[in-house]
Amino acid sequence: MTRAELIEQIKRKKSFLCVGLDPDLSKIPPHLLKEDDPIFAFNKAIIDATHDLAVAYKPNTAFYECHGSKGWETLQKTIEYMPKDVFCIADAKRGDIGNTSTYYAKTFFENMNCDAVTVAPYMGEDSVKPFLAFENKWVILLALTSNKGAFDFQFIQSEGNKPLYQQVIETSQQWGKESNLMYVVGATKTEQLAHVRSLAPSHFFLVPGVGAQGGSLDEVVQFGWADECGLLINSSRGILYASSGEDFAHVARNEALSLQQEMESILNKKGFI
Amino acid sequence: MTRAELIEQIKRKKSFLCVGLDPDLSKIPPHLLKEDDPIFAFNKAIIDATHDLAVAYKPNTAFYECHGSKGWETLQKTIEYMPKDVFCIADAKRGDIGNTSTYYAKTFFENMNCDAVTVAPYMGEDSVKPFLAFENKWVILLALTSNKGAFDFQFIQSEGNKPLYQQVIETSQQWGKESNLMYVVGATKTEQLAHVRSLAPSHFFLVPGVGAQGGSLDEVVQFGWADECGLLINSSRGILYASSGEDFAHVARNEALSLQQEMESILNKKGFI
Repeated sequence: MTRAELIEQIKRKKSFLCVGLDPDLSKIPPHLLKEDDPIFAFNKAIIDATHDLAVAYKPNTAFYECHGSKGWETLQKTIEYMPKDVFCIADAKRGDIGNTSTYYAKTFFENMNCDAVTVAPYMGEDSVKPFLAFENKWVILLALTSNKGAFDFQFIQSEGNKPLYQQVIETSQQWGKESNLMYVVGATKTEQLAHVRSLAPSHFFLVPGVGAQGGSLDEVVQFGWADECGLLINSSRGILYASSGEDFAHVARNEALSLQQEMESILNKKGFI
Repeated sequence: MTRAELIEQIKRKKSFLCVGLDPDLSKIPPHLLKEDDPIFAFNKAIIDATHDLAVAYKPNTAFYECHGSKGWETLQKTIEYMPKDVFCIADAKRGDIGNTSTYYAKTFFENMNCDAVTVAPYMGEDSVKPFLAFENKWVILLALTSNKGAFDFQFIQSEGNKPLYQQVIETSQQWGKESNLMYVVGATKTEQLAHVRSLAPSHFFLVPGVGAQGGSLDEVVQFGWADECGLLINSSRGILYASSGEDFAHVARNEALSLQQEMESILNKKGFI
């Protein structure tokens, strides 16, 4: 998907919501466990209930891999089931030396036809660039993550008082551009969000951490808004597990709708729609 | 596998060789392409030909994932086929927030019964610790990688002139110990290898980069040797693709044998066997 198509979708759906598809057998509604493929049945119902409200879906590969080759099939079926207009992010946090990254890129971009994959920056340029060689496909590079462990290395300051996340953002802008490179920036670190936005004024950010992890949508918009929106806000558990009853899809829709309505109001205030 | 069992195996096989199983359909002998599962046929022949010479195998997950669920089955079959005494490393470079890392750990440690998984450190403690919660299983943390991109971030110096790889090694020693934590240290950076060894005197290092990438076995031993060996030297392409003829397994064995004999001579000189 191109940047223009993503922005068109945001305007059309009046939303910049990404729904994280992290289906956990111990948390999905028990009545689905009798299905042949309970996780696919769950994902299908969630997609049916939210695809007019969400511009992106983000399946997290760990939740599929842990079921072996059957889980991998479920992941493939889930991605194939998504409507063609949504932006599909493989949340895989991959990254390896060039040749290997090319195979990871083929896995997600060619075989699965995802639009984007999350990539870890530690191994540097030749671990990231192979993903950027695919036309209209995106790298979403870990910059400042929402978890506690982010403080272990991402804030280490080098000469010039640049934290590591700043080095990652500055250096990686030589590899990709705003049309094929986004950053993961956690909603739980709003103070730094403004800093990250100043470093990458128009790149899209994938923002986890709103909701269950304590981040606030209003604050994310206050500090992270860009001229062309520049935000994909992810919610996983808050939507997926809002109800464990037979009404789960309906309740999930209501949660997504509530976020979409907040987003619509923001997009209106910003004069974006 | 425990550290004692790994060391016992090194002494018994007179080897600290790890064979990387990165099977590329465009490089494996063409006569195998008519098999039902050419990659499994290839891996099986390589394992048969080298298991008395190698103490570890390291399948790289990208080379299996790129074939979808069938590739994932091949990976599982390959791991199941390995003799029980070898140390199996899933070279997966995973790492995500706690809950997700637990699912990755279950994938490789429980479902596949691997002994170790390679993990990227960028997201910090809560992305690494879930892997360390599994008894007699290992994290092999990226510290100083063998690729060119390693210079982008791993050498960034913080206050006190500590490069990032040093911070990773120092900090992570609070999370795991020499019985469940190894480091990836590239053979192409021998100058830093001595530094890394001084920071982690007895941890095992998984050392890629000998052979095809230009690293020297003698130099790795000179700068990286520890009291109890502390080295697993990986070779992938140099062994796997030594011949593309019907004799590939025999030629692969000869390559592995040549490395094993060098290693035996080193282990003798060091008085380790």
